[in-house]
Amino acid sequence: MSGDADRRHPVDGDIGQQEMAPSKKGAVLVDGIILNGPTTDAKAGEKFVEEACRLIMDEVVRKATDIHEKVCEWQSPEQLKQLLDLEMRDTGEPQDRLLELCQDVIRYSVKTNHPRFFNQLYAGLDYYSLVARFITEALNPSVYTYEVSPVFLLVEEAVLKKMIEFIGWKEGDGIFNPGGSVSNMYAMNLARYKYCPNIKEKGLSGLPRFVVFTSAESHYSMKKAASFLGIGAENVCFVETDGRGKMIPAELEKQVWQAREEGAAPFLVCATSGTTVLGAFDPLDEIADICERHGLWLHVDDLLKKCYSANASYLFQQDKFYDVSYDTGDKSIQCSRRPDAFKFWMIWKALGTLGLEERVNRALALSRYLVDEIKKREGFKLLMEPEYANICFWYIPPSLREMEEGPEFWAKLNLVAPAIKERMMKKGSLMLGYQPHRGKVNFFRQVVISPQVRREDMDFLLDEIDLLGRDM
Amino acid sequence: MSGDADRRHPVDGDIGQQEMAPSKKGAVLVDGIILNGPTTDAKAGEKFVEEACRLIMDEVVRKATDIHEKVCEWQSPEQLKQLLDLEMRDTGEPQDRLLELCQDVIRYSVKTNHPRFFNQLYAGLDYYSLVARFITEALNPSVYTYEVSPVFLLVEEAVLKKMIEFIGWKEGDGIFNPGGSVSNMYAMNLARYKYCPNIKEKGLSGLPRFVVFTSAESHYSMKKAASFLGIGAENVCFVETDGRGKMIPAELEKQVWQAREEGAAPFLVCATSGTTVLGAFDPLDEIADICERHGLWLHVDDLLKKCYSANASYLFQQDKFYDVSYDTGDKSIQCSRRPDAFKFWMIWKALGTLGLEERVNRALALSRYLVDEIKKREGFKLLMEPEYANICFWYIPPSLREMEEGPEFWAKLNLVAPAIKERMMKKGSLMLGYQPHRGKVNFFRQVVISPQVRREDMDFLLDEIDLLGRDM
Repeated sequence: MSGDADRRHPVDGDIGQQEMAPSKKGAVLVDGIILNGPTTDAKAGEKFVEEACRLIMDEVVRKATDIHEKVCEWQSPEQLKQLLDLEMRDTGEPQDRLLELCQDVIRYSVKTNHPRFFNQLYAGLDYYSLVARFITEALNPSVYTYEVSPVFLLVEEAVLKKMIEFIGWKEGDGIFNPGGSVSNMYAMNLARYKYCPNIKEKGLSGLPRFVVFTSAESHYSMKKAASFLGIGAENVCFVETDGRGKMIPAELEKQVWQAREEGAAPFLVCATSGTTVLGAFDPLDEIADICERHGLWLHVDDLLKKCYSANASYLFQQDKFYDVSYDTGDKSIQCSRRPDAFKFWMIWKALGTLGLEERVNRALALSRYLVDEIKKREGFKLLMEPEYANICFWYIPPSLREMEEGPEFWAKLNLVAPAIKERMMKKGSLMLGYQPHRGKVNFFRQVVISPQVRREDMDFLLDEIDLLGRDM
Repeated sequence: MSGDADRRHPVDGDIGQQEMAPSKKGAVLVDGIILNGPTTDAKAGEKFVEEACRLIMDEVVRKATDIHEKVCEWQSPEQLKQLLDLEMRDTGEPQDRLLELCQDVIRYSVKTNHPRFFNQLYAGLDYYSLVARFITEALNPSVYTYEVSPVFLLVEEAVLKKMIEFIGWKEGDGIFNPGGSVSNMYAMNLARYKYCPNIKEKGLSGLPRFVVFTSAESHYSMKKAASFLGIGAENVCFVETDGRGKMIPAELEKQVWQAREEGAAPFLVCATSGTTVLGAFDPLDEIADICERHGLWLHVDDLLKKCYSANASYLFQQDKFYDVSYDTGDKSIQCSRRPDAFKFWMIWKALGTLGLEERVNRALALSRYLVDEIKKREGFKLLMEPEYANICFWYIPPSLREMEEGPEFWAKLNLVAPAIKERMMKKGSLMLGYQPHRGKVNFFRQVVISPQVRREDMDFLLDEIDLLGRDM
């Protein structure tokens, strides 16, 4: 970039058409580019945003809670590629065409807000959080200095302060993370830092093998975190669980001793309050005692953190047993962060603590209702009595109901959930997850999260599975 | 959770007021909670979203590009806490109060969309990307399986395919990351995996010291990544740069030899195309030759990836020298991801490749214009001739213009940029970043990114700095 004065020319007369014709008055050209005025047409842009907002209101927000609409409009990848115009071209598309594309994107996307979307650990539409997220996207902030993000930093501080109060601590610190996997990674990094602060500068070279303990039911992100942090996936020791999926404390202590005998360095126990599949809660008191005896850091992975809509008192009560003091100089692995605390703050403002608690209580009551219904109905069988909101169950079609529960029965039952899932996706009436788990053949897993879900949807869930599977 | 049948009661008569009275017909009570009907009032919720959308249109989208509005409404943390009602209470707030809160959040937030927000490596309002982000927030997808995210997975595939074509590769793979810091962390992890795949399972225990090379001008996230990955921040070797901030290849080779002699394991060179401060480009050809000779992985950190609004041909051309084959089994450190490719796809659809290229060309032309103006104006001094779009300069107030450039001059000049920055923040007329850098006292750094920026804003930038600083 040299300062060639000849490059610049005052311009008169016609300047040709661009996205928007820049101002001609005193126009300045550099390398043939007119620099006066903006190139974007603000009026047209604003109109586009307004029209898109109307589309979003109609097609997403309104239809989201409408049980007469489909949960999904299933298409195979090949069909969907035909239906969508994905190609990016040299020249741009006009705004009406872009709106059509938006409509297609919405049409073929899964409606995770639908009251009958039960597929994952997120569901339902919270209007307040949605508004907070719209504001965030429009303001486009990045949370790292007070200078650029004054409001959102204070909001995050206020939310963390309130959460810390709830837990019952006098002081504390925290950070909002993009999700559970990243949170577990932070926890492992912090525990390692506490165990051996030198690692930050020197790395793991020359040190003994670091070992992490977690239950055999824990989230798979533990192994991922251990790989990423240079600890190694093999150095995550999975402690055996009882019949309900809870870590057995005696097994933990045995494994800690074994690791010590092998010359390894045990430094962390990741307990789980609400495992992914069974919703089991590890016995934190006993585990905390073992950690204290062996000088191990205790982290509790509460999966509820992931779902803002079921968050209040149950989250905080479960967390009071462990101490987390963050490495304040290195709070976030990314430099720029979205103000995730803001959406949570907005829900909290809108519902109040009591409103949040009511949502959790209702979700749990709906879970209890569903459990009772499963017990009453022919052809439905609980995997186990649920401890929390995860309800795992099989649907046994009429053809299998008289069969003995031997290898043939389980082999046949294993095929039922996937077949029903395919039918429900193609019909679009419902989405519900299934999986095998530690020797148990494919079963359905229901977790009530959405505030839009009603008793009628619980009935529908079972009716629809029966309807889709009764000829199998 | 036991199956106590007595808990359930059919309910008649008055059921009391909740957020919305659930349906009484055939109502079912579990533990005193009525499970029929939703508890959220969809009509009220929709109205709230609609009103908030209007607010966002007026207060953010429309005012964003209005140069007559302030860039920021500066308040100290103490003042701002007084002005905002941050407290979360037991009971929720009514919707009109929530809208007032939204208005306050917007009012006191920095307007990063404003044409005179030059503070960071993001700026400006792209209407198309904004719509894509609104759709994303409304649909609330998470990209990990085709089942729950069919459209966004195909969109990401299409965008990556197109980017790979641009680079000129026959095949390739990729992922959209939350930003540069996380991208660098991935790069380091992948390079380590390539060097020694066993680390994934076994960890770094018992292995020699791993060493990374990067320029002294590189992004600070390199040290953070090395700490996090267990490599250790000290094992990031900073290679000396030339006067323009480019890595000196001979220095790199010297350091690689030295690391080898020390018994360490050099495995990665992180070159930079567009350094954070000076916008310098490392000499990739020479560095690639050294990497080939020593069997080192070459990663190029292109900071432009962070700013979607200036992305097209310049990004891709600079990237063609290195090979990135991703560890496909472990693509993302988090489990759930936002479909970040979708907003980029929407811009690309709207502007076309040529429109994106035009944006970049115009940003560069504006940069050249500003450089010429800085040279022409009294009291402005370039730190160095810029190589790209980062323009670093000092403003020298009249009282210092006759002073010899000795220690006293530099000490006094060091105070000028912070003092001007404070004045511009309080006035709200402009936001521009400043910093000291490797022995150079505080200077301003301007990077043109926003498509809304005009030649007039470049003039304003210099006029305003002069206006704010001329009495110093």
